[in-house]
Amino acid sequence: MNEDLMQKIMGEVMKKMADAPVAEATEEKCEVKEEAPVAPCTANFTGCGLTEFVGTAIGSTIGLVIANLDAGIHEALKIDPKYRSIGIIGDRTGAGPQIFAADEAVKATNSEIVLIELPRDTEGGAGHGSLIIFGAEDVSDARRAVEVTLKELDRTFGDVYGTPAGHLEFQYTARASYALNKAFGAPIGKSFGITVGAPAAIGVLLADTAVKAANVDVVGVSTPGNGGTSYSNEVILTFSGDSGAVRQAIIAAREVGLQVLKTLDGTEPTSTTVPYI
Amino acid sequence: MNEDLMQKIMGEVMKKMADAPVAEATEEKCEVKEEAPVAPCTANFTGCGLTEFVGTAIGSTIGLVIANLDAGIHEALKIDPKYRSIGIIGDRTGAGPQIFAADEAVKATNSEIVLIELPRDTEGGAGHGSLIIFGAEDVSDARRAVEVTLKELDRTFGDVYGTPAGHLEFQYTARASYALNKAFGAPIGKSFGITVGAPAAIGVLLADTAVKAANVDVVGVSTPGNGGTSYSNEVILTFSGDSGAVRQAIIAAREVGLQVLKTLDGTEPTSTTVPYI
Amino acid sequence: MNEDLMQKIMGEVMKKMADAPVAEATEEKCEVKEEAPVAPCTANFTGCGLTEFVGTAIGSTIGLVIANLDAGIHEALKIDPKYRSIGIIGDRTGAGPQIFAADEAVKATNSEIVLIELPRDTEGGAGHGSLIIFGAEDVSDARRAVEVTLKELDRTFGDVYGTPAGHLEFQYTARASYALNKAFGAPIGKSFGITVGAPAAIGVLLADTAVKAANVDVVGVSTPGNGGTSYSNEVILTFSGDSGAVRQAIIAAREVGLQVLKTLDGTEPTSTTVPYI
Repeated sequence: MNEDLMQKIMGEVMKKMADAPVAEATEEKCEVKEEAPVAPCTANFTGCGLTEFVGTAIGSTIGLVIANLDAGIHEALKIDPKYRSIGIIGDRTGAGPQIFAADEAVKATNSEIVLIELPRDTEGGAGHGSLIIFGAEDVSDARRAVEVTLKELDRTFGDVYGTPAGHLEFQYTARASYALNKAFGAPIGKSFGITVGAPAAIGVLLADTAVKAANVDVVGVSTPGNGGTSYSNEVILTFSGDSGAVRQAIIAAREVGLQVLKTLDGTEPTSTTVPYI
Repeated sequence: MNEDLMQKIMGEVMKKMADAPVAEATEEKCEVKEEAPVAPCTANFTGCGLTEFVGTAIGSTIGLVIANLDAGIHEALKIDPKYRSIGIIGDRTGAGPQIFAADEAVKATNSEIVLIELPRDTEGGAGHGSLIIFGAEDVSDARRAVEVTLKELDRTFGDVYGTPAGHLEFQYTARASYALNKAFGAPIGKSFGITVGAPAAIGVLLADTAVKAANVDVVGVSTPGNGGTSYSNEVILTFSGDSGAVRQAIIAAREVGLQVLKTLDGTEPTSTTVPYI
Repeated sequence: MNEDLMQKIMGEVMKKMADAPVAEATEEKCEVKEEAPVAPCTANFTGCGLTEFVGTAIGSTIGLVIANLDAGIHEALKIDPKYRSIGIIGDRTGAGPQIFAADEAVKATNSEIVLIELPRDTEGGAGHGSLIIFGAEDVSDARRAVEVTLKELDRTFGDVYGTPAGHLEFQYTARASYALNKAFGAPIGKSFGITVGAPAAIGVLLADTAVKAANVDVVGVSTPGNGGTSYSNEVILTFSGDSGAVRQAIIAAREVGLQVLKTLDGTEPTSTTVPYI
């Protein structure tokens, strides 16, 4: 219940405010601001001493690599033993941005997608996190796939628009590759797009708007309970077609989405980074 | 981890407090209060320029209507094509309130329930959101169903009681109709009630208390992992019987629930709006 | 979207700060501090007047007992009618700690585990809550099982390490009993351990590290989408072996986990209580 959460937080805030004299709080200004930002806005490859660590990025995304995955884990995760090395992308917030970014990584490197799964997360929000595993015969390929994915995320978060009440997401690629095929059934090599709306009611409207706006082929519609989502509060339309049509469908849905999401709490939805479509 | 969330929030709060001199914060008082409330407490039909927008209500609930649903979406959502128009209710917080409200809408209008799905949501809370779709041959019927649902929500949130640690929900109707039948298997035309407790342990106690308090027929007990919930942290008892018995069962469970939920963090559970049972 | 939640919270905070003059807030200090803590750090058996109430503990955990469960609920939950009495453990935050605690309770009392289910919860975090039901022929046995579980929780939360970005969990027992068998398929009577990492990517690295560090037998690897979790953002490795090997595997994974989790937001992960492994 959002009201409860708010009450709990307000209780804590009031307690802390009582504990910390105001003057002190003001003096803490500079030190506090020097701390690491909660949600880093660019891929960060600062090491942590572990050879397995590759980097972090927006959405509480982490990238890891394992040079020689243990046979027991290979078997438990049903990963083909020929992929000695794996690259791992995981995050708390976002599945679409990470999957579209991973799709670029698959195109750019000698690696394969061996697992994509979507936890129900977004840290109290309405959507998913993700777990993506790349397989490669060589560790440098696995690492490269993870690096490319982390670097692409600033772009693929560009058409993610959030408010306290919900979110919108739009993604587009001119040529879908194996990550989009595995996650969404996208036809390989064709233009492909998705529209996402949360709460799910908004996603239904986006889907209808998109398919009416251009001549696109519906690949699927995922709803909270039909197995296409992990009980997230989203409706996701996936579609392919010629490049112009896919973009036109997205642009029409985006225009409607930005208007309708705002009605819930009056907050103007804004891009998480910079729109790319 | 709730402690982590709290820490993160406190960090942000302290930062903002440092940024915003206290005097300024006090001066902002009036402007801030004029903004739209985060959780509107009554249905709000102020338009947003889109003909598809019907209104919003408590629980981050939105109501939409599509006059002529695209055939591709019809098919993907398995909605009978004879329902040219659909009404859509979606929300972040609450499934019971919206479903019981939709049940009144089905009774009052020439519309059918074509889809009810429950995302795992409540914005970090223990329960569900919902997605409800009404089908109608005429757009005015679909719109009317959405309007009735939005207006009923203030009532159906009356026996939802939350604290930071969990929540209780009780719903009652004298005559169950098609929404309750579709969502919970309620026998059509009979008195029907539900008890919900979160964390789920409390829901078990409510269920036992309810069935011992009156001669009611158990329709079902949903638990976090048996498919009746979307992995929410709730146990839901659904039951029918004669009107007096259903109410008596609810009243007994509610009395126990209010006492036991309070033990978790000392917070007195209070009605979200005004109790109706 | 975590940024949205933050924005919403900050809005509320700023509003409240404007409403409550600072002087007042400071004066409230003493009263506020006397209130019950949000997350009690020790089992609390203060009654609430209900005979069914046993106590509360860390993780928003509640313990209840029903002396004579109604036959209708017995049947709906598929609990063997010979267990007239049930003990119930439920919580918002944590499944591993509660299940390992319940395992001690089963060893120490004349009770059986009749149900273990994992809601997707942790109040906006990346993991699970739990619902555990003990069956007993005598109410005093059911109550005792609940009491033992609540008392064990301070220990079993010892190797749970959280930050705003994720969490790590490690559990170890020298002899697995029926709770661990039911929940994780642990071989009865053998040393058994688990490693948990969230976001799930970290859990993959922990799993690989653990099995490489010692000669242990993998019981399973649960991922967000393979049915082993309730769409939580975790990867869980379960394993058995000789006591020294199980501990060695955990200690190696813990060392890696503490380094890698910190990279996400710079926060040092700390034990929820006191490490026990």
